[in-house]
Amino acid sequence: MTFNYAQRRAKLAALLPAHEVDAMLVTSAVNVRYLTGLTSSNAAVLVRADGSALLVTDNRYIEKTHGLDVQAVEASDVAGELAAPGVGIEAAHMSVATYQRLGPGLVPLGPLVEGLRAVKDDDELELLRTACAITDQAFADVLHTIGPGVTERDVARLLEARMIELGASKPAFDTIVAAGENGAIPHHAPTDRELRSGDLVTIDFGAAYQGYHADMTRTVCLGPPAGWQREIYDLVAEAQRAGRHAVAPGAGAREVDAAARSVIAAAGHGDHFRHGLGHGVGLEIHEEPFLGPARTGRLEDRVPITVEPGIYLPGRGGVRIEDTLVTRRGGAELFTKTTKELLVL
Amino acid sequence: MTFNYAQRRAKLAALLPAHEVDAMLVTSAVNVRYLTGLTSSNAAVLVRADGSALLVTDNRYIEKTHGLDVQAVEASDVAGELAAPGVGIEAAHMSVATYQRLGPGLVPLGPLVEGLRAVKDDDELELLRTACAITDQAFADVLHTIGPGVTERDVARLLEARMIELGASKPAFDTIVAAGENGAIPHHAPTDRELRSGDLVTIDFGAAYQGYHADMTRTVCLGPPAGWQREIYDLVAEAQRAGRHAVAPGAGAREVDAAARSVIAAAGHGDHFRHGLGHGVGLEIHEEPFLGPARTGRLEDRVPITVEPGIYLPGRGGVRIEDTLVTRRGGAELFTKTTKELLVL
Repeated sequence: MTFNYAQRRAKLAALLPAHEVDAMLVTSAVNVRYLTGLTSSNAAVLVRADGSALLVTDNRYIEKTHGLDVQAVEASDVAGELAAPGVGIEAAHMSVATYQRLGPGLVPLGPLVEGLRAVKDDDELELLRTACAITDQAFADVLHTIGPGVTERDVARLLEARMIELGASKPAFDTIVAAGENGAIPHHAPTDRELRSGDLVTIDFGAAYQGYHADMTRTVCLGPPAGWQREIYDLVAEAQRAGRHAVAPGAGAREVDAAARSVIAAAGHGDHFRHGLGHGVGLEIHEEPFLGPARTGRLEDRVPITVEPGIYLPGRGGVRIEDTLVTRRGGAELFTKTTKELLVL
Repeated sequence: MTFNYAQRRAKLAALLPAHEVDAMLVTSAVNVRYLTGLTSSNAAVLVRADGSALLVTDNRYIEKTHGLDVQAVEASDVAGELAAPGVGIEAAHMSVATYQRLGPGLVPLGPLVEGLRAVKDDDELELLRTACAITDQAFADVLHTIGPGVTERDVARLLEARMIELGASKPAFDTIVAAGENGAIPHHAPTDRELRSGDLVTIDFGAAYQGYHADMTRTVCLGPPAGWQREIYDLVAEAQRAGRHAVAPGAGAREVDAAARSVIAAAGHGDHFRHGLGHGVGLEIHEEPFLGPARTGRLEDRVPITVEPGIYLPGRGGVRIEDTLVTRRGGAELFTKTTKELLVL
């Protein structure tokens, strides 16, 4: 996949005059990748207001710059090679140590590249669609192995191994498998706890495919659900549906969150859903935009986003249901297609 | 595994008076884990010179703080909750944006926690030993599948899947498989290029196990090696041996590097080995200390480190051989035990 990197750099260049800089020094590895195609752990690119650019990386990666559409030079101090008074920097990514060493005169700027990255082109959406399809398929393939006696860690390993067999480059993030009382911890790391009859089991995972990250959560029940389990499952499912239906170009980040949250709050569980409703996905698993009660801004067209409400009851368990979808004029496109009916295993 | 977190915090506290601060605000996620046991993507801990500490994380992780030996409170702005004039910060980890928001009065400090982390205790070494054993075993199990017709990506996937089956929590980093001319790129990402007879194939991978990261590289040959392949393989193997033998408590980071590099340089290949000789491993795949021509400092006892010289011939191919070993009085202990004879497949 070759993206139009020159166009991306031109879009960044067009933003610079409003920030009163002639050039911006981009040091975030993922932003350098977005603007040039170079994947590395140590690179920087200077994008000038006239649209020209200079890429710097160290000797481990310099060979990979051949064939890119941007001039590249080798240096070990990649940011130092490009820093100069009056140049803008990524304030969210440059460390205080680097800033103190390279300043004075650098101009801290906000997340300009992240803003560009939020809106995806067709090729990016196709990669993300594939990442989500691998995620769905892995869940379907592993589902029959989930039952009493296997551990949280077993389930995570089976899912991750299956995603790789299906073509994922790697898991998009550390898989969460949270059984029974562990389900009350939104970001529980899998343990050797065995699944038992009567457990709700929350499974949050996804595939990374050519740099793009899928994100999906399903909660299943081992054996027939108790009344309280069915109640919170249905509530979360209703909230998740309301959230998905609110996802559209022009919708406010706070309003989408509220569409889902109000369902849970109206049922008296507002205190049991304390994280944001969702986040953008793309070259990072968490990226702009973010949906939450204190978030501002509006969704644009072609923005992949997760919708993932949950209810967490300390000491008892929890439910979270999450999809990755993308804003589209005429209706959001759902990328993760696994059923959201409560699966009783 | 429960580590002695209080002892780690006490060691950090003991360093603070020399830096003229009464407390240090630790914001690096891995350093927070090292000091408290909390794994999260958003937490901070304030360690005071009297040895007391306060941990802050957000609502996603606050449940995980129960049972830790440190007081914890919940907040969404974890660094903001703890910042105060005169408090030391991790200058290498705090962003310019956060510093500008939370200052003034914060005191940028160097990598104090990283210095402590370099020296491992028995439990850490045991986890790293296991991570390396999984790495060795995965290589042995996958070796018979490496041959003409499989792709670089196939080899990477098989190794990663096997490591997970063997108990790894995940790959320690993105596996490198570089065949033929791709071997000239030290950090080549696997592609769909098929392996062919006559290729040298460099395989750099490792398992992560309970947070600890193994790192090993082997270069194999498909079919009988050509003269130039045998020549650079033997040179790198000799350099790697010299580097390993130089690893000892008290050895200088520059001297260990030179022990290996001089072998390669003496054969006229100095320009073809342009990265550092190695790095510490532990909770991160690259951590203090680093071995290289411009590195200062000396190795202490109980420091896991990689030794990984290479020769890279642009357009032709390359060889790298890497072990993870640990400094010990009386002789380094080798953690990665796979043979370093040239394997002809």
